[in-house]
Amino acid sequence: MIDKPTFCDFAFGAIVNRSPLVIGISTDGAAPVFAQAIRAKLEALLPNGFANWAAAAARWRSAVKASGLSFSGRRKFWQVFTAHAVSNPESEPTENDFERFIAEVKGLGTALENGSVALVGAGPGDPELLTLRAVRALQSADVILFDDLVSRDVLDFARREARKMLVGKTGFGPSCKQDDINALMVSLAKQGKRVVRLKGGDPLIFGRAGEELAACKAANISVEVVPGITAVQGAAAKLGLPLTDRKHARRLQYVTGHAKDGKLPMDIDWRSLADPATTTAIYMPTRTFATLVAKATAEGLDPKTPALAIARATRPDQAVVSGPIGELPERLAQAALPGPVLVMLGRIIGEHAVEQTATPARRHG
Amino acid sequence: MIDKPTFCDFAFGAIVNRSPLVIGISTDGAAPVFAQAIRAKLEALLPNGFANWAAAAARWRSAVKASGLSFSGRRKFWQVFTAHAVSNPESEPTENDFERFIAEVKGLGTALENGSVALVGAGPGDPELLTLRAVRALQSADVILFDDLVSRDVLDFARREARKMLVGKTGFGPSCKQDDINALMVSLAKQGKRVVRLKGGDPLIFGRAGEELAACKAANISVEVVPGITAVQGAAAKLGLPLTDRKHARRLQYVTGHAKDGKLPMDIDWRSLADPATTTAIYMPTRTFATLVAKATAEGLDPKTPALAIARATRPDQAVVSGPIGELPERLAQAALPGPVLVMLGRIIGEHAVEQTATPARRHG
Repeated sequence: MIDKPTFCDFAFGAIVNRSPLVIGISTDGAAPVFAQAIRAKLEALLPNGFANWAAAAARWRSAVKASGLSFSGRRKFWQVFTAHAVSNPESEPTENDFERFIAEVKGLGTALENGSVALVGAGPGDPELLTLRAVRALQSADVILFDDLVSRDVLDFARREARKMLVGKTGFGPSCKQDDINALMVSLAKQGKRVVRLKGGDPLIFGRAGEELAACKAANISVEVVPGITAVQGAAAKLGLPLTDRKHARRLQYVTGHAKDGKLPMDIDWRSLADPATTTAIYMPTRTFATLVAKATAEGLDPKTPALAIARATRPDQAVVSGPIGELPERLAQAALPGPVLVMLGRIIGEHAVEQTATPARRHG
Repeated sequence: MIDKPTFCDFAFGAIVNRSPLVIGISTDGAAPVFAQAIRAKLEALLPNGFANWAAAAARWRSAVKASGLSFSGRRKFWQVFTAHAVSNPESEPTENDFERFIAEVKGLGTALENGSVALVGAGPGDPELLTLRAVRALQSADVILFDDLVSRDVLDFARREARKMLVGKTGFGPSCKQDDINALMVSLAKQGKRVVRLKGGDPLIFGRAGEELAACKAANISVEVVPGITAVQGAAAKLGLPLTDRKHARRLQYVTGHAKDGKLPMDIDWRSLADPATTTAIYMPTRTFATLVAKATAEGLDPKTPALAIARATRPDQAVVSGPIGELPERLAQAALPGPVLVMLGRIIGEHAVEQTATPARRHG
């Protein structure tokens, strides 16, 4: 089925041309203007370099047939080719690439085509908040190691053939065996796999990326980081909170309420929480939240500072509890929000009415 | 041309089915596996709801012809239809939508189909760091008001017909006439336009979004915020800096070095910069940077704290100057980096070697 193109006789009124790659769009005559709009969208999303790779495929086809590879070997060749073309669309296909792909299929490739790791930010939950590069990384991954905070809608961007492995919860919640994740990641990459380590929010913000980067570097594995929208950014966008409104804030700070042992970290700069000209976001505070607020209040934080707690930011079931920071621990305990909670506090929250509508807002784009 | 689908006889081996919308992918037999990979990509990117809108188009076609609209009126109808379908793919097309579109074309629509504003984060520069929702917003915009910090590659995602207006520099650099931007934005939306206000990084982080949100709300204009990757996140990803590595940092903070009058804000919490367990990013500090460092050092900041200054983060010509924070103002003055500069400091920078390679890293996805 996949190998045998079938002729189809739709009238394709709109064409995206990356010849010999051609994409046709038909609405069966129903809506040519709609078809043109989709054409424009695909023009923007499909790299121009795909034309070069499709042309290289045409050029190499007979050489692959003459290479002595079996049917499944030839199929493997085109999979390697495709993964490379999708990952490196703007590179120029060379004879050297051809030789490397053949060598990889013949099992000589380990030294030539190593695996790699990408630490990819899955964003706060809404799959539309993925970056284009994160989508590309997911689409070229052989294996995806994901946290349970990652929205399942995000995983839908992966190829059907990709292995998807839940490796436990990091970020919010109790510490899982980070060393095991590191070892698995490195071992898969050493087998030549393209590994995506998919993490909620941004991998470099409270995501243990430091330890994973170090493990890859120690094993000499090529590693890349793809940033992601944090829960703070997602929540602020959804609620319309200008985090650094210049009338109210000089600083925006992200603070962890969670240390290695599950207790409140003792080296938090409590006074920095008391500063009235700042907006603060606190990650993972549920168990330690009341203590944290008490400590910050003792250092001068005004207990009347407007605050909110948000769970499942940007998802359809996003839930918000708001109130003065001094009262929020108790309100939060009563509300029992689903899953991990992010707390935000600062004068900007008081200034801007928080929309708590359950229905999703009309999307602009 | 656009209205008259032409028959084309490519063999489309791979199909994305949103019937009656059908998208065919052909490599002229050169690379069926490549075609299937592109099919998977389009499956992910094209909303399922497009099928409903294409079906509605087929259903409404004869009613539009019978509506008494002129040729150009019918064309306008399909443009209105398309803009709505692209913006709201998952909404169910209703007879009410049909009536609204007809009314809008007949000029009765102003009260029914208002314009809207989206404040959209353009990210740090690399267009691959746009979110999917930002791409959608750009593709459905009638007018785009952009800052000069926005990368031109990002603007390429807009429709060719969209009006693109440079409205001056916000963020880094001297203050431009924010009131004029607000007035223009509101006036365009009142004319029924879909306005995108496109800002570098994230609109809610040092982007004046507060004032723009307030202007829209005061004028009763529907407004949405689409978050973006900040320059801090982009730079950290490119340089492999785990911003909150748990061995070194409890806090990540964004600080502005720029007040309304172009001078250093006097209500910065200087001691929060001195905290050794934090990672600090300072926006727009060039003119005021030496003063800022002197003030923070006087409050206890260790002048040996590792730091770096980065310009044009994530772009091909990204430039970095590094050194202890106490020496960075002088090094920066000598280096004369291009354009606005972001400074980052904290122990995590010393721990992790900063890659300063000029050549872009191989992309994983």
